Amino acid sequence: MKEDGPVTDQGRRSGQGTEVRTVLIIGAGLIGTSAGLALRDRGVDVYLQDADAAAAALAADLGAGSLERPASDPEVVVLAVPPQSIAPVLMELQRRYLTSTFMDVGSVKVRPQVEAETAGVDMSRFVGGHPMAGRERPGPAGARADLFVARPWVLTPGPTTSAQSLARARSLVELCGADLFVMSAERHDEAVALVSHVPQLVATLTAARLNGVEAELVALSGQGIRDVTRIAASDPALWTEILDANAGVVLAVLDQLAVDLDRVRRALRRLDDKSTQSRLDDKSTKRGRDTPDPAMDARAELTALLVAGNSGRARIPGKHGGARADYVSVPVVIPDRPGSLASLFAAAGEAGVNVEDVSIEHSPGQPVGLVELLVQPNAAASLADALRESGWTVHYGQSA
Amino acid sequence: MKEDGPVTDQGRRSGQGTEVRTVLIIGAGLIGTSAGLALRDRGVDVYLQDADAAAAALAADLGAGSLERPASDPEVVVLAVPPQSIAPVLMELQRRYLTSTFMDVGSVKVRPQVEAETAGVDMSRFVGGHPMAGRERPGPAGARADLFVARPWVLTPGPTTSAQSLARARSLVELCGADLFVMSAERHDEAVALVSHVPQLVATLTAARLNGVEAELVALSGQGIRDVTRIAASDPALWTEILDANAGVVLAVLDQLAVDLDRVRRALRRLDDKSTQSRLDDKSTKRGRDTPDPAMDARAELTALLVAGNSGRARIPGKHGGARADYVSVPVVIPDRPGSLASLFAAAGEAGVNVEDVSIEHSPGQPVGLVELLVQPNAAASLADALRESGWTVHYGQSA
Repeated sequence: MKEDGPVTDQGRRSGQGTEVRTVLIIGAGLIGTSAGLALRDRGVDVYLQDADAAAAALAADLGAGSLERPASDPEVVVLAVPPQSIAPVLMELQRRYLTSTFMDVGSVKVRPQVEAETAGVDMSRFVGGHPMAGRERPGPAGARADLFVARPWVLTPGPTTSAQSLARARSLVELCGADLFVMSAERHDEAVALVSHVPQLVATLTAARLNGVEAELVALSGQGIRDVTRIAASDPALWTEILDANAGVVLAVLDQLAVDLDRVRRALRRLDDKSTQSRLDDKSTKRGRDTPDPAMDARAELTALLVAGNSGRARIPGKHGGARADYVSVPVVIPDRPGSLASLFAAAGEAGVNVEDVSIEHSPGQPVGLVELLVQPNAAASLADALRESGWTVHYGQSA
Repeated sequence: MKEDGPVTDQGRRSGQGTEVRTVLIIGAGLIGTSAGLALRDRGVDVYLQDADAAAAALAADLGAGSLERPASDPEVVVLAVPPQSIAPVLMELQRRYLTSTFMDVGSVKVRPQVEAETAGVDMSRFVGGHPMAGRERPGPAGARADLFVARPWVLTPGPTTSAQSLARARSLVELCGADLFVMSAERHDEAVALVSHVPQLVATLTAARLNGVEAELVALSGQGIRDVTRIAASDPALWTEILDANAGVVLAVLDQLAVDLDRVRRALRRLDDKSTQSRLDDKSTKRGRDTPDPAMDARAELTALLVAGNSGRARIPGKHGGARADYVSVPVVIPDRPGSLASLFAAAGEAGVNVEDVSIEHSPGQPVGLVELLVQPNAAASLADALRESGWTVHYGQSA
């Protein structure tokens, strides 16, 4: 399989020709149970197994599938199990289901693929996969049929994966409503190191600096550090597994990041030396305009890095498929009591405007809150006008 | 002034005794104009000046103050000007207004305070300050009267600041609705290095890694990297100024972060070596249970850092004054069309439940979206029940 990259609509339709009627899911955690719910919604017969009987029973009660054994080979067996279990479970189940296709759902792809091959798995019937969706609440209790909707789900077929196996895996991804990507396991692991594993580590390193600091200093935290460190609250055991499994690739990215970090530190050291010097040496204030300023290089270095951060950030697609900046914010002040939001959204609905996203800010003891309604640019002005006519305090377009 | 730390209600009330009737604001940018709007709302006579006549005119039109000269000394002059202008503007205006108190609003405090003192400013009439509020939209057009509401506003009086000047500065902060903190300039700069300047740099360094990477790899970006790198979109020129002004303190934090980063890299290198080795050496699979595993130390090192990230993150207070985790999410599936949210909030309002925060997820072409209503824990179950009775698809509490 040489195909790389996001799959076009055409590629997608070709996958839909392959029927997946019966699926066996091994592992009734968040991912397995959510896949069961999604597939059941699409009319697939789903069977569920988990070594933890309580988890399996809960998943079944939620409607994610049957705890019976499938009567014949399922088209697809989904292995939603910890990475180290993939190879042994594959070996066992490939002997039982001789015609089934097997997928895993782990967040690192090269290592389990190598381990499966080494263990003697029939790789023609195996397709690596990674549904890039998750929630704070783990286990079947957090499961949702829409967990995968519009989220990336990467498939990493190997060189000997059969066309039938890949077609079945594609169909399953599409049935779950996910955005299908097909690439090599190596490319996948490189991508997640950049967009997931390294961000996790920098969030962790930044949050770790707050330990041992007086609470009143941490109290000055604003939205910036909250956003940067949100994922620092992630599960250490799970992340130790992930980082172990992708250690070499993550290390390569961190090595590059460390080079940039050293540049920042050198620039700051020069600026700090300069600042100390200029306080000690009052002649420095009389330096002529033609004298080269050693601090200028350091400032230029910082600016260049900040600009590189701008351009890197701009490459991230928005969560709705386009940049979030495509939406325009209409800020409205509302009383902080039940019913305020209802009235506000009723007014927005009467104006015929679809609110794409909302954020609410208020603080205890304050009688008002600020709601930002995010809407399509061409709807913002009419929404603001309509809300003002209904008596709302709207902070949009007053500068025009 | 030896007082440190966040100011109690008692401290707050003592500040309210000092009347501030007239304020002159120098600089009609986002901060200056917003302060003008807030103070006018509270009945203060506000005068505005800006070297940029268009900015001043816009701020005045927005209602942020008068462009006349004040007839007598204002109680407070707010210097909302770039850091390098603070000392010269102070020198000039202290000669004109002989009884006024002067405040700045810069995001770094030690350097301008030292520069003012060196320039010969009367430090008894100067109070350093930092309102920790901002918006993506700069300039007077982005100004809002509620910009400072419930946000930290730090005052950094020096050893010779008069009691009257501090009392006036406190009154102004309270009139703007901000949360008042009083601490030394040194402690302020240490705090912002930790909670603002270093997070900015790690966001920048992480985002910079995305340059030159193929778009299809960046397409796998999820909410984690979006949050970590959001502030990487900040203004490079502004941030070069800030980092230059606080270079020594930021460097000290980055040096500590670099130590942790080196620990991570060493651990990953050991795990990567181990993984390569075990693939080459098939005897490694037969290693007895008693043989020490060199990878275990590396894994323990990663886990320890991830745990430190957990605890550091947990120290950040929630944006509503408590941890955001205090709210419980009630997920509801809604049709993606105008009026859906209105109906939903109407139903929540009828249930008598105050919705504290909202997030909305949907993707183009999908007929449904998912709304998460964040409410007080004791309200979640009754909200879920009430919404279900009204026919909504609620994904709360089904695991119970």
